[in-house]
Amino acid sequence: MKQRGLLLVISGPSGCGKGTILKELLAVQEQIYLSVSAATRRPRDGEVDGVHYYFMSKEQFQAEIDSDGMLEYTCYCDNYYGTPRKPILEHLEQGDDVILEIEVDGALQIKKQYQDAILIFVMPPTLEELEQRLIGRNTEDSQTIQKRLLRAKEELKLVGHYQYIVINQTIEDAVKDIQSIIRAEKCHYNPFLNCETQPKSK
Amino acid sequence: MKQRGLLLVISGPSGCGKGTILKELLAVQEQIYLSVSAATRRPRDGEVDGVHYYFMSKEQFQAEIDSDGMLEYTCYCDNYYGTPRKPILEHLEQGDDVILEIEVDGALQIKKQYQDAILIFVMPPTLEELEQRLIGRNTEDSQTIQKRLLRAKEELKLVGHYQYIVINQTIEDAVKDIQSIIRAEKCHYNPFLNCETQPKSK
Repeated sequence: MKQRGLLLVISGPSGCGKGTILKELLAVQEQIYLSVSAATRRPRDGEVDGVHYYFMSKEQFQAEIDSDGMLEYTCYCDNYYGTPRKPILEHLEQGDDVILEIEVDGALQIKKQYQDAILIFVMPPTLEELEQRLIGRNTEDSQTIQKRLLRAKEELKLVGHYQYIVINQTIEDAVKDIQSIIRAEKCHYNPFLNCETQPKSK
Repeated sequence: MKQRGLLLVISGPSGCGKGTILKELLAVQEQIYLSVSAATRRPRDGEVDGVHYYFMSKEQFQAEIDSDGMLEYTCYCDNYYGTPRKPILEHLEQGDDVILEIEVDGALQIKKQYQDAILIFVMPPTLEELEQRLIGRNTEDSQTIQKRLLRAKEELKLVGHYQYIVINQTIEDAVKDIQSIIRAEKCHYNPFLNCETQPKSK
């Protein structure tokens, strides 16, 4: 019997290094699928449909919501963003582990529907370190950075809903942490369960 | 702040390969301490006090029980066997992970007292494989082997109390499983918890 894959949900404040960690993880881990989000905003230069996002019209997105086709979704700046359910369930059935990189709100929506979902929060070693990383990226002004830090502090209050916390001291260690979580979670599976729960023949 | 070590309890049927797995694990894993049991039986040839067992008299053992010095204990063939509490707590405080290799009954006694204890059950891939391994050891007659198999089947009924099941397909994989469990369990620790639970200053 093929073992079903794990549904892993990764969140963490902007600047914590999630993107780099996931890129490295996908390079070394087998049978893992990174979920592609759906969005109603226009593609930016270089963004490819089905790679960066599934781009769809608001009408299409609304139809997906109505037919329960979205695992979670949110509206931000008058555009919808969400996680299409079908590809995720297909990969899980095939035995692939599926990774979703989403915001805390979406993660909690998923946990309500799939109690088996494994919630992992990626953190910077300290808030000071996060600030330094955001400044170092050199892509935001100081006001935006302060906003992001405030948001990070808000998100940290919800970290108790996450089963695992990965501190991004180094990318290498953070990737090993997530690989260990995946491997350990697979040890919750009991191959003898079927024979145990069946009535014993005499 | 130093992180407290993990208390890991390993059980599994006789012949499943626990001993070899633990030997390999101790060779590759850092900061890990294998608990030494106490026993009232006489040392066998080559057995060293404090290495194979802490050998003690029945009076000493009874005094330890009375002063709550045993984490768990059992009586078998008119002799006491048990796990002294003090060295384990000391190692945990120092930040060492502690491994206990004990029977299912003792494991459940420990889980009642220490809910944080991590229970790992080591299994052979199949019961047929277990039988083959017991025959292969060539140390027991067929009646004893049948007794051990019967006992293994009884133990498997209690496997639901264990958080993790490690299938001993190969020693190498089983060791990696346990290493992953240790690493993943350490990700349950929240370094921000202290600041969160303290009242915020305004």
